[in-house]
Amino acid sequence: MKYTDVIKLVREANPLIHCITNKVVINFTANGLIALGASPVMASAKEEAAQMVQHAQALLLNIGTLSAADVEAMILAGKEANRLGIPVIFDPVGVGATAYRTETARRILAEVDVTVIRGNAGEISVLGGTSVKVKGVDGSEDGISPRVVQQLARELNTIVIATGKIDILSDGNHTYSIANGHEILSNITGSGCLLGAVVAACAGAADNVLEACIGALCFYGIAAEEAAKTAKAPGSFQIAFLDQLYLLGDQAIDSEKVEQFELEV
Amino acid sequence: MKYTDVIKLVREANPLIHCITNKVVINFTANGLIALGASPVMASAKEEAAQMVQHAQALLLNIGTLSAADVEAMILAGKEANRLGIPVIFDPVGVGATAYRTETARRILAEVDVTVIRGNAGEISVLGGTSVKVKGVDGSEDGISPRVVQQLARELNTIVIATGKIDILSDGNHTYSIANGHEILSNITGSGCLLGAVVAACAGAADNVLEACIGALCFYGIAAEEAAKTAKAPGSFQIAFLDQLYLLGDQAIDSEKVEQFELEV
Amino acid sequence: MKYTDVIKLVREANPLIHCITNKVVINFTANGLIALGASPVMASAKEEAAQMVQHAQALLLNIGTLSAADVEAMILAGKEANRLGIPVIFDPVGVGATAYRTETARRILAEVDVTVIRGNAGEISVLGGTSVKVKGVDGSEDGISPRVVQQLARELNTIVIATGKIDILSDGNHTYSIANGHEILSNITGSGCLLGAVVAACAGAADNVLEACIGALCFYGIAAEEAAKTAKAPGSFQIAFLDQLYLLGDQAIDSEKVEQFELEV
Repeated sequence: MKYTDVIKLVREANPLIHCITNKVVINFTANGLIALGASPVMASAKEEAAQMVQHAQALLLNIGTLSAADVEAMILAGKEANRLGIPVIFDPVGVGATAYRTETARRILAEVDVTVIRGNAGEISVLGGTSVKVKGVDGSEDGISPRVVQQLARELNTIVIATGKIDILSDGNHTYSIANGHEILSNITGSGCLLGAVVAACAGAADNVLEACIGALCFYGIAAEEAAKTAKAPGSFQIAFLDQLYLLGDQAIDSEKVEQFELEV
Repeated sequence: MKYTDVIKLVREANPLIHCITNKVVINFTANGLIALGASPVMASAKEEAAQMVQHAQALLLNIGTLSAADVEAMILAGKEANRLGIPVIFDPVGVGATAYRTETARRILAEVDVTVIRGNAGEISVLGGTSVKVKGVDGSEDGISPRVVQQLARELNTIVIATGKIDILSDGNHTYSIANGHEILSNITGSGCLLGAVVAACAGAADNVLEACIGALCFYGIAAEEAAKTAKAPGSFQIAFLDQLYLLGDQAIDSEKVEQFELEV
Repeated sequence: MKYTDVIKLVREANPLIHCITNKVVINFTANGLIALGASPVMASAKEEAAQMVQHAQALLLNIGTLSAADVEAMILAGKEANRLGIPVIFDPVGVGATAYRTETARRILAEVDVTVIRGNAGEISVLGGTSVKVKGVDGSEDGISPRVVQQLARELNTIVIATGKIDILSDGNHTYSIANGHEILSNITGSGCLLGAVVAACAGAADNVLEACIGALCFYGIAAEEAAKTAKAPGSFQIAFLDQLYLLGDQAIDSEKVEQFELEV
């Protein structure tokens, strides 16, 4: 049994993932989810955001290009997802860069019971109260410690995924590193945002959300490794990566790089 | 004379197609229209949506990521298109999935004189009053009968295109099936939405709108067939398909798959 | 010393470019900037648009799909950029096509001290008061004279870039033509919009903005020339072009086509 077997569940269940996400990555997110075997729906009008959740198996909230109207829709959709018991994945893009973004992220965390938070190390650090400099939405700050991630997961009572060269993942009790991936991922926009959507698809198709997250991170990273074997520049890579999200997994995957930390709780 | 000859008219006239469409597919729609030989313009502010129609040869209304502001712009633009006598193509994405979407679709049909409705079979069934389960915006429900499509075209006094493995098209008196296309189209987002835009381009360049729609469906499907010959996964296919929209048609096209039904009216 | 050496400065400084731009090209713009070596951020909520400028090295304002909310954010961000002394690049997409677009462009020019205006010849002509017919946002009207561009730069006290088969650039005192580029650029959406962003990245990384603009135009055009050597249709070209923005410049570039005009001032 491998973590990446979760993709088989995604392809069997074809979960509908409701994404309230940013304008930059909305097309890439939809194409990535379809390639993976899930179905995307994007409905951010307050008149329908909550009702659309009733069809969905998971909800993604991403504040990359937030507006007051989007935030209202996110809260409505998030509360409905909580009522229905489906997982909510929250991607606090650029939190820390502006007061509005930070306040919005805290508001969402206060009003919605978030299942998984996915951010780069800088964003996660901000949520954890550490002061860091955040650069752009595609920038990343490496070096967050597994202990900080575990602590934050415990405080917020969620799974926390801090992505970077090495991804760190914790549910507050169990903490892992995932070393799959390729640096060229940082040369396309939305690689982190689409990962949030892939986590949502896996969480929506599996019973064990923690293992689903590990599987999502491994699969995503391995797809990037495979794509980078032939595509050496970001335009080509973007396309090869979408192809790999579709192609990978029919044959056995032997390259998961997962380690568990032994940390005091 | 072939139906796909309509593409020559598009390339000669280079019609301007005003698209009020969804955020997921807006880039793909613009690139697809340019590749085909048309010019896109996207202007959804209520302050200018109607005035922009004055430059256009056709108007596309697509509710994939609707908002109250977009709907207002659609109504204003649609009425101006009616006043000017240019074709209005309506794509009721996801109708039936939420009350808001269904009400909006009905409101547009009530306030705007729509020339062509393009939806998947599930969406068309909802407009026709049949209760179906709609899954996502990329989902499709196959199996709508030509008789239902013809009946709906007659009731709504429009051309109706129900897309699926086999597309069904009717103006209420004449009903056709078009069997061109490739299943990999369902693995990219916006393949139905871009088809709506291609229908708009053909309707905007030709005198006979019914024949233009048949030509658009054949051409689009054949472009997918050609692209799928070399591109076997969705990232590559998306690119190869844009290429084919640009390349196809310089040489004679011999693979139209059109059949006319003989139905009682 | 070549103009295109400015790209080395971009890659060293990795400037953050704040883009308030249109929904059609927002993804392509972000990917193009990253490929080039800059970092994009897109934040158009009025609550944060100005504060985000404080992290940025340049600001891009593009009215391709303007709304009242976007315009408010553009003014706030533009004034903050002026206060901080960072360059503001303005792309008046489709100005002249509607009264709202023309009024908005004039309002931005009145309220914000714009450093560089980038438009096609038709758009630039409108700003200069010449009456022309504007066709679509991707259409271009060739034939603007260097004298008109220089005159407009002088009147508006900005650098003006009028793009077309031959690009014309002037700061009111010095006027240049740049003949790099490839006609297939006009077959993809956003080629002009992304150029505005590349100009912003170069202006944000260099001391001499006029030379940075020349370098941006040359580099962009040469990247298109290189991409067009292998990619003959717009889907493939779009990808090859992003690749070239990333790959080009490691080796010496010998194909700059810049000429300076000698015009009476």
